[in-house]
Amino acid sequence: MIPLEPVNKTLQIRADSLQPGLSVDCVIFGFHDGNMKILLNKFSHFTKWMLPGGFVYRTEDVDMAADRVLKSRTSLDKVYLKQFYTFGDYSRTNISENEEVLIGQEYIDEKDRSSHWLMQRYVSVGYYALVEYSQVKIETNPNESIAWFDLDNVPVLYSDHNNIIEKALSTLRINMSITPIGYELLPEKFTMTEMRIIFETILRKKLDRRNFQRKILSSGIVYKLDEVSKKFGIRESALFSFNKEMYEKAIADGLLLLE
Amino acid sequence: MIPLEPVNKTLQIRADSLQPGLSVDCVIFGFHDGNMKILLNKFSHFTKWMLPGGFVYRTEDVDMAADRVLKSRTSLDKVYLKQFYTFGDYSRTNISENEEVLIGQEYIDEKDRSSHWLMQRYVSVGYYALVEYSQVKIETNPNESIAWFDLDNVPVLYSDHNNIIEKALSTLRINMSITPIGYELLPEKFTMTEMRIIFETILRKKLDRRNFQRKILSSGIVYKLDEVSKKFGIRESALFSFNKEMYEKAIADGLLLLE
Repeated sequence: MIPLEPVNKTLQIRADSLQPGLSVDCVIFGFHDGNMKILLNKFSHFTKWMLPGGFVYRTEDVDMAADRVLKSRTSLDKVYLKQFYTFGDYSRTNISENEEVLIGQEYIDEKDRSSHWLMQRYVSVGYYALVEYSQVKIETNPNESIAWFDLDNVPVLYSDHNNIIEKALSTLRINMSITPIGYELLPEKFTMTEMRIIFETILRKKLDRRNFQRKILSSGIVYKLDEVSKKFGIRESALFSFNKEMYEKAIADGLLLLE
Repeated sequence: MIPLEPVNKTLQIRADSLQPGLSVDCVIFGFHDGNMKILLNKFSHFTKWMLPGGFVYRTEDVDMAADRVLKSRTSLDKVYLKQFYTFGDYSRTNISENEEVLIGQEYIDEKDRSSHWLMQRYVSVGYYALVEYSQVKIETNPNESIAWFDLDNVPVLYSDHNNIIEKALSTLRINMSITPIGYELLPEKFTMTEMRIIFETILRKKLDRRNFQRKILSSGIVYKLDEVSKKFGIRESALFSFNKEMYEKAIADGLLLLE
């Protein structure tokens, strides 16, 4: 077992304990107040936000490293992280940006900075997860902030992290053609509008309200509850819930929800 | 530009010119004589076959490394290699197997073997390609064999390469639900049986002959020629060809061929 590293010790790891030149980055999607959200973090001394990410120990599976990194930065445990792409362009590593990350880390001597393991080219394995927003307990730390951002309001991030988010979204878009999504993002009871917004956000197009509801209900993965919600304005909205058995069957068999 | 390495010099590269602990592996599918085939290679002094693969230069994009490796081992150029998964389990690297690969390489001194860069843990980025069998000109080399194997008759391979092939196939299976395949695998004129065999091999199930033909023709990606083939026995078989425009539209828009 590799112990969890305290966040502010991340950059103090000895070079020879790490798989050189390899990192992992996690794209964590959530849904809250009618908006798709993404989890970002920021070192207090560095100007840019970044995806929660980290490094791989020499004796550690890359998948395990992604789990460990995510858990050490948030309280998220047992999240199903899905590897979706490896970012291997030489130009993605910006050495001067990495130097900025090191500057301000007082425990790293100035003379040791240029030979620090962070000052090399990095290939990064990307993972994504869909999580229920309310289940995420953000760990606070004086050296690092973690926060949710609206997906349509993500700032310019460190390295190629904006590109990594785009690639995660395009992968999700393809996977949505085959397997349903939403189970991990929505609370137990939700409105059809909330579910449609998730689909619209990922597909980046408006969907017909009636057709969407008809297709989702005829697929059997969702059923209507005998309850209503008043969350969205004064009009009462019907509440729905997932039929977990049908949902898992649809994932196993493949199911085209949207033609 | 990085010059192509002669095949037998692959293991002589200086460690400091390589991105450490990172490799690429290529899964090349072809179709010939009614069988799906896969391209494998073997060092003459090593017992096992392996996927055509290699290493990444420090200043080279990982995608470029995959192209270069494939071209240096075969005559294959301008093949559309698609990155599909990164194999990062610690246990996938078998150091004693790697030592065997080094033994017999007379230009590597025995005393240098244990510290050779190949004797470390490797993470490998997997790429696949579908190619037309007849277009592949295999480069012969006294130190290395390259050969096509029937997909259902692949031997036990080096490292986790059998697993890499399985993962490539399962990725293809998912992608086939969304985009058509076959264009790269089939010659200009082909029979419906040849096309169906490709789908059956990847999906690992028998498809109804009539339904398959009906769906393929109604999708518009294939049209019937005014010619027949006698390749499969004495009965004449209709010949078909791809409608490239419709095929590319189906790839761009997504198309569920098989429900």
